[in-house]
Amino acid sequence: MATITLDLYLYKLSSMNIPKGKLISIGGSEDKGTAIEPNFIPKNYLNFLEFGILKRILSEMKGVDSVMEIITTASVIPEEVGDNYIQAFGKLGCTNIGVIHIKNREDALKPEYIERIRKADGVMFSGGNQLRLSMIFGGTEFLKILLNRYQNENFVIAGTSAGAMAMSNTMIYQGSSTGALLKGEVKITTGLALIKDVIIDSHFVSRGRFGRLAQAVASNPGCIGIGLGEDTGVVIKDGNKMEAIGSGLILIFDGHGIRHSNVADLEEGAPISIEHLVVHVMAKGNFYYLENRRFFAATPTVEGELK
Amino acid sequence: MATITLDLYLYKLSSMNIPKGKLISIGGSEDKGTAIEPNFIPKNYLNFLEFGILKRILSEMKGVDSVMEIITTASVIPEEVGDNYIQAFGKLGCTNIGVIHIKNREDALKPEYIERIRKADGVMFSGGNQLRLSMIFGGTEFLKILLNRYQNENFVIAGTSAGAMAMSNTMIYQGSSTGALLKGEVKITTGLALIKDVIIDSHFVSRGRFGRLAQAVASNPGCIGIGLGEDTGVVIKDGNKMEAIGSGLILIFDGHGIRHSNVADLEEGAPISIEHLVVHVMAKGNFYYLENRRFFAATPTVEGELK
Repeated sequence: MATITLDLYLYKLSSMNIPKGKLISIGGSEDKGTAIEPNFIPKNYLNFLEFGILKRILSEMKGVDSVMEIITTASVIPEEVGDNYIQAFGKLGCTNIGVIHIKNREDALKPEYIERIRKADGVMFSGGNQLRLSMIFGGTEFLKILLNRYQNENFVIAGTSAGAMAMSNTMIYQGSSTGALLKGEVKITTGLALIKDVIIDSHFVSRGRFGRLAQAVASNPGCIGIGLGEDTGVVIKDGNKMEAIGSGLILIFDGHGIRHSNVADLEEGAPISIEHLVVHVMAKGNFYYLENRRFFAATPTVEGELK
Repeated sequence: MATITLDLYLYKLSSMNIPKGKLISIGGSEDKGTAIEPNFIPKNYLNFLEFGILKRILSEMKGVDSVMEIITTASVIPEEVGDNYIQAFGKLGCTNIGVIHIKNREDALKPEYIERIRKADGVMFSGGNQLRLSMIFGGTEFLKILLNRYQNENFVIAGTSAGAMAMSNTMIYQGSSTGALLKGEVKITTGLALIKDVIIDSHFVSRGRFGRLAQAVASNPGCIGIGLGEDTGVVIKDGNKMEAIGSGLILIFDGHGIRHSNVADLEEGAPISIEHLVVHVMAKGNFYYLENRRFFAATPTVEGELK
């Protein structure tokens, strides 16, 4: 029989409850305050110093005094990725950014790293390959501490691209855009399970990933699909209240009303059909509540709802 | 006061009625029976000779004896495009394929061409630039004859890519995939209006055009959005009954239930948000009825429905 650690026990016990922490999932390519072409400023460009996603991450902790650790595990160029974030957060006046280069499961055990995430106000998982995240962190003490802190404290877990996709329980790890509505073309496994009953996809707009998220949701209509565009994300509070941030858009796929889908009966490689998938397109300032699957154009004002 | 031709009068009179002809709209890149890499046959590949889209176009007319005219107007390489179709239909045993190279409005008046479309069993509009189709054919005798024959006879009008997009009344003519959910990024004009209250988009899967069709539908939720994938199309009978054909998928966007959309209030370039867009994913053999907006997984068997 497997033994159960105290951390895991506490986590399991508390998982019935509403988490006190926040998740910030980002679709990748978030603005890092690097110079943009003066002749080509996108119409939807947000002021990095005031309204950028990284600024918001800091605001959800302790502002410029926040202590945050960048976890570069998903990336194959971790040093470069770490430096980029140190510079980007530095532009925002935050100098307490550490970088944790966990490259394998052994690294994840290092007491130094465990000590650092016990002290931080939040962490941010970089982009890269989400399978590396589940493979390296699955079942580790490191992950349990993160889960515990997220559950019981005002602790922020941010993730971009692969770092966002790994947050959900059901994690897409492969699937081309063009083949994505052929059965079997979308590969799914278990993510870090920071949040249940959602499937997060990233780089959703420029890589045309509608099909793969639709297939994933049709295969399990109990999950809400969250397709995050570039430089776009969601702040999730109470494991439920989701606010759109950033300059682009987010697609929400609600498969609860799916009437017909052939996904169970098809041969591998055959095209999938789905009747009645409800889609919402969210932009900055919109809200979506996961529990009751409701879209709000602006902050809900109903008493007792999100302040 | 504008004068009205007999043709136009007859067309207007009959437009209350159900058209006797058929439309076949194709998302582009339809299989033309050209050799595919033996080591890379897509899993969803259809046998060109039996189940390909071009075969189906012939079946909707008189099989291999059909007389069809290819209209290359949308293309900037009309001769090459025409030759490709002559060869492709030739492989299917059909040798009565003509090519009509109308390159400007003057060409559209040529009695020879008008005579030929009076005699054909159907026409096919090639791909290219859909604006060329509306610009060159809008208001011409040539178009009126097509409309009349489509309305009153078992006449087939097929179109691929630009040729499909120009069929609808509301025609998208520009809009990048990445910017497509920014207000104003999708440019719309009036198409050839072979069918009303739909907006057809093409190359829908490989070019990731979810956003632009969503924006077009949100701007006019009375229109059904039809996003056609590559080598995929719909046969539309009675101006209503739509059958999916080909090897890929079709997305149907039904905006009738849209609750919130900020499309009217936004500044140009700002991200759009949309609450509650209903999406269906159709594959070969699925049906959608435009009038009552109903999806059928297979041929409806209700008496009086499509046989």
